[in-house]
Amino acid sequence: MQSLPGFRDFFPAECARRNYLTGTWRRVARTFGFREYDGPTLEPLDLYRKKNSGGEILGQLFSFRDKGDREVALRPEMTPTVARMLIAKAREYRKPIKWFSIAPFFRYEKQQSGRLREFLQLNCDLVGDNSPAADAELLALLIESLRAFGLGPADIIVRVSDRGTWTDFLAAKGVSDEAQRRDVLSVIDKLEREPRDVLEKRLAAFNLNLSEIEAFISSARPEFFTELQSNLAARGLGDFCQLDLRIVRGLAYYTGLVFEVFARREERRAIAGGGRFDRLLSDLSDGKVDLPAVGFGIGDVVLGDLLADLPGPRAKMDSAMAAGQASDIFVVVADEFRRPEALGVVQLLRALGRRVEYPLNPDKVPRQFKDAEASGATVALVVGEEWPKLKIKDLQARTETELAQEALADWAANLQTPAP
Amino acid sequence: MQSLPGFRDFFPAECARRNYLTGTWRRVARTFGFREYDGPTLEPLDLYRKKNSGGEILGQLFSFRDKGDREVALRPEMTPTVARMLIAKAREYRKPIKWFSIAPFFRYEKQQSGRLREFLQLNCDLVGDNSPAADAELLALLIESLRAFGLGPADIIVRVSDRGTWTDFLAAKGVSDEAQRRDVLSVIDKLEREPRDVLEKRLAAFNLNLSEIEAFISSARPEFFTELQSNLAARGLGDFCQLDLRIVRGLAYYTGLVFEVFARREERRAIAGGGRFDRLLSDLSDGKVDLPAVGFGIGDVVLGDLLADLPGPRAKMDSAMAAGQASDIFVVVADEFRRPEALGVVQLLRALGRRVEYPLNPDKVPRQFKDAEASGATVALVVGEEWPKLKIKDLQARTETELAQEALADWAANLQTPAP
Repeated sequence: MQSLPGFRDFFPAECARRNYLTGTWRRVARTFGFREYDGPTLEPLDLYRKKNSGGEILGQLFSFRDKGDREVALRPEMTPTVARMLIAKAREYRKPIKWFSIAPFFRYEKQQSGRLREFLQLNCDLVGDNSPAADAELLALLIESLRAFGLGPADIIVRVSDRGTWTDFLAAKGVSDEAQRRDVLSVIDKLEREPRDVLEKRLAAFNLNLSEIEAFISSARPEFFTELQSNLAARGLGDFCQLDLRIVRGLAYYTGLVFEVFARREERRAIAGGGRFDRLLSDLSDGKVDLPAVGFGIGDVVLGDLLADLPGPRAKMDSAMAAGQASDIFVVVADEFRRPEALGVVQLLRALGRRVEYPLNPDKVPRQFKDAEASGATVALVVGEEWPKLKIKDLQARTETELAQEALADWAANLQTPAP
Repeated sequence: MQSLPGFRDFFPAECARRNYLTGTWRRVARTFGFREYDGPTLEPLDLYRKKNSGGEILGQLFSFRDKGDREVALRPEMTPTVARMLIAKAREYRKPIKWFSIAPFFRYEKQQSGRLREFLQLNCDLVGDNSPAADAELLALLIESLRAFGLGPADIIVRVSDRGTWTDFLAAKGVSDEAQRRDVLSVIDKLEREPRDVLEKRLAAFNLNLSEIEAFISSARPEFFTELQSNLAARGLGDFCQLDLRIVRGLAYYTGLVFEVFARREERRAIAGGGRFDRLLSDLSDGKVDLPAVGFGIGDVVLGDLLADLPGPRAKMDSAMAAGQASDIFVVVADEFRRPEALGVVQLLRALGRRVEYPLNPDKVPRQFKDAEASGATVALVVGEEWPKLKIKDLQARTETELAQEALADWAANLQTPAP
């Protein structure tokens, strides 16, 4: 009996790796004053059928009828859920609303590198402010959510673009119908992946050609970009971004700024992406809630693969994984007559927040020390015939000292151990 | 557009409450040296069809055919998943294996108090040791996972029972067939919920009557219970448990110890439950992996309702929720000319792990202070014409001091703020 293809079992090492990613995301998002939210794993299918999502996601839904004959789907992305929540309660929150979530998503993808059918995403949204300063704040959070793993500007690049600039350009070229514009942008979205003759052919249908598209891409400069860059530079993050109008993003709801993050050196899928969706809330609420918004998502699969391939970030991740699985203290029961006292010691240390293990049943002392090493503990506390004195063995320095029972709590409170 | 019935939107306050529960569970399980694992949200339907789960759960599955025509189900409980994972890799881990997970589960339940269709559970399992000491360790973890919320022995009780004692009793009464025993136990499971005449009638089918059952329940004393109690007493947890043979648990796979936790004063569903399943791994692996195991699950719904109703635990939860949503520092931009410097200050404070907010766009200083108060920050840092000096305003004590830019990092590193 195996797990389904594209779904993961997280054994303790993989779970520690997952927690390193999600814990780092949560910590960084909080430093930006973003508040965590979440929604249901299962949603009404209609939430994705409406105009919110793009066509690709609709074809990849895990959808079915539940026992109450409702059409339902496992959530493939967060934006429709957060849009629904914002429409319901945006009035109750001060603006700008800054929310993040860390949650699993489900897409029936073809089996391929960087793609799973259940994956995690950090989603961050800043709602109620359409200024370049808001764009910059969100991009700073995006960059810090990756930099926290040890990724520098030599490792990753945020390619920044603007749907608005494309809209103006296409209107000037005679493509002003929204459906047509969407079709042209879906060709642009494939610019780096499809052969030139295929692209030329598809563009010709709109009276466009590749050379004028390429000239536009290399010369156009959206107004807000200068302000964005100087804002990021004031934070020391200027090196992470470059203007790149080849980025247009697949989803239908973006209106202005769009961006994707890529590894500098490797041919990988995008690590993260997002953009501005100033009309989505209004469209979905028939104009009742009209708030501009900008957001991004980072998935755990491509990012995890990248971190594993880069020596610095890999070492950082490995050390966090080891700390996440280790215990702090192993209590050796050297005299079975003192087991009740040993249990009292275990209880006291745990109450102080220490991660403590001990032998559940009588065992030879040398074997207990082997288990102590395997537990990852840095210290063994020996409860034996010396009670009410204890022996402290430093398992790294291999030194031994004595401790009186009364001094135990103070000793434990001051013990330096790696954070989980 | 609403969420599905029985499914929850977690707005920031509810998400902070959820994180208080899950964060507390994670912290306590780690102090016991338990390692976190997780499995897929979606599993092959066969995982639940086999003998693992009980009949009730099978009738509540969210199951369907995926796009690859596989029969799949949203996981309704963790034990089948962890059993599969243990069977695959138990050999690679030192025994006893001590694992925990915190994950969402899905059951198509009738809408009723304490029941949702998506809920969270802490699951803890101790595998490879069938001693009463192992039972005690697991029950101590169960108790601490509830005591950490401020619940004392006056609030909750762990009712401890034993399937083995029931098996012996029923065999002596002529019920030794496994299917028959299961049927009798399903009657016992309803002892506190069904009228006496209904129970008498159902017992009569097995040549049993209620008074002999009640006599057995009040007089039988499983052998291991004394050791269990003295072990828990050595940890100061003796007051949390009582022997109560009315507890038999619904799931089919339990073999020995079974237990449920209830609120002392209120008529609530069980807060938590579990037991020993010494044959499940062997049964599922055709004898290849034969390890005894004991485990429990705590759900977030009944527990959350209980915490909200008890003054002490409620205050503890409210304060954790407030801390979880607050920022630490609000940077007031009193002079727009100094905005780049203010962004540098924000960046520095966030890099030190502080939760920092500031006005994205120019705003009057009194309005900025209002936002500072609303952010939950305890301190406002004013960047203005005094630069490179800053003003520190303590938002609670309403005092003001000055700080030189060079001293900022030291000041931030030593600032006392409530933990998120």
